[in-house]
Amino acid sequence: MQNIKSEQIHQLEKNYRTSLINSIIGYRALNLLGTTSNEGITNLCIISSVFHLGANPPLIGMVIRPEREHNDTLRNIRSTGQYTLNNVLPEWYMHAHQTSASYPSGVSEFDTCHFKKHYVNGFKAPFVEASNVQIGLELREIIEMEINGTTLVIGEIVHILTAEGLIGSDGTLDHGKAKTMTVAGLDTYYLPQLFGQLAYAKPEVEPHVLNANANPNI
Amino acid sequence: MQNIKSEQIHQLEKNYRTSLINSIIGYRALNLLGTTSNEGITNLCIISSVFHLGANPPLIGMVIRPEREHNDTLRNIRSTGQYTLNNVLPEWYMHAHQTSASYPSGVSEFDTCHFKKHYVNGFKAPFVEASNVQIGLELREIIEMEINGTTLVIGEIVHILTAEGLIGSDGTLDHGKAKTMTVAGLDTYYLPQLFGQLAYAKPEVEPHVLNANANPNI
Repeated sequence: MQNIKSEQIHQLEKNYRTSLINSIIGYRALNLLGTTSNEGITNLCIISSVFHLGANPPLIGMVIRPEREHNDTLRNIRSTGQYTLNNVLPEWYMHAHQTSASYPSGVSEFDTCHFKKHYVNGFKAPFVEASNVQIGLELREIIEMEINGTTLVIGEIVHILTAEGLIGSDGTLDHGKAKTMTVAGLDTYYLPQLFGQLAYAKPEVEPHVLNANANPNI
Repeated sequence: MQNIKSEQIHQLEKNYRTSLINSIIGYRALNLLGTTSNEGITNLCIISSVFHLGANPPLIGMVIRPEREHNDTLRNIRSTGQYTLNNVLPEWYMHAHQTSASYPSGVSEFDTCHFKKHYVNGFKAPFVEASNVQIGLELREIIEMEINGTTLVIGEIVHILTAEGLIGSDGTLDHGKAKTMTVAGLDTYYLPQLFGQLAYAKPEVEPHVLNANANPNI
């Protein structure tokens, strides 16, 4: 095993360190974050720092970096109190990645990156029509992180839009069937394959499979 | 498209809602969280709420739920200031899942779930020997979330231990090569396949692939 220690991490070349630290924890939830300004100028950016905060109430957190391309997004969330998260699919993942480019303020990535938007009655933020899992959220809390200048945005899920047949009988969304993609690091996209669904773990009961892929590709 | 609205989400059966909300954002970083008490009683639990907070300094966040099985973990992190995150591999993912069972306090999941531990000089928290990506972290900040009683734990990466050959020339850790697993929801485990590594996105430049899987299984 190779051991990279704290002092060495700090001395790594900047881009190398950024790629390493961004990839180290493994695969990350991958979504397109849709917002609008009060003037109706929409914004779309790819985000991989979304995390599950709790199921009841249904809360999702995300980290917004203090950088230019995200400022429209954060300003829109603050001013409208609403945003959407939409999954990324293989057919158009390159367009989703392209939303990370630094377009000038006032340019909508929906237009420049070829995404159709749609709206749900009474909800201001735009959804991505090409996604088959779309979530509408209302802002609940913003935490400014003094430690590194990032912003934690906490929202409550108020709309779940999915294509028919993606939610299983136990409530689990079937991202394998949806063909939802994931990312490790900044730019490396993956398509997961089901390996196995396991029974609820209890002491004194051996772990066992409820539903396995008959032919996992390992 | 099916639309589940806020009022309906609140009325869903508890387990169904928990599975739906836990799976809705997509794939999540999957790790084994290793800690020790000051008395040397070790603890290991599977965690899928780890998120990237920033690369410089190298900060990782995670959500700890206010429930019994995690209390040892949180107490250990508070008292020793250290913990480890270790990736999950297909050969033993069922044992990793089993660490989520509610074992009595004082029982080490390293022993009951068949994991060998190892230590790095000067670092108290145990690493999982069977993982090929192991991270050592020092506690930097704890945020109690009033909104739902969870705890956000922010740590700085001080050790990165990886098998030789997993870190690419650009710094990105190759989780495909490592065979790192991911999870969607509470119990459904996936093994991702590389789809494509994309070039840094710039306005006026069409998105393009740097490194593609010649035969993605879609």
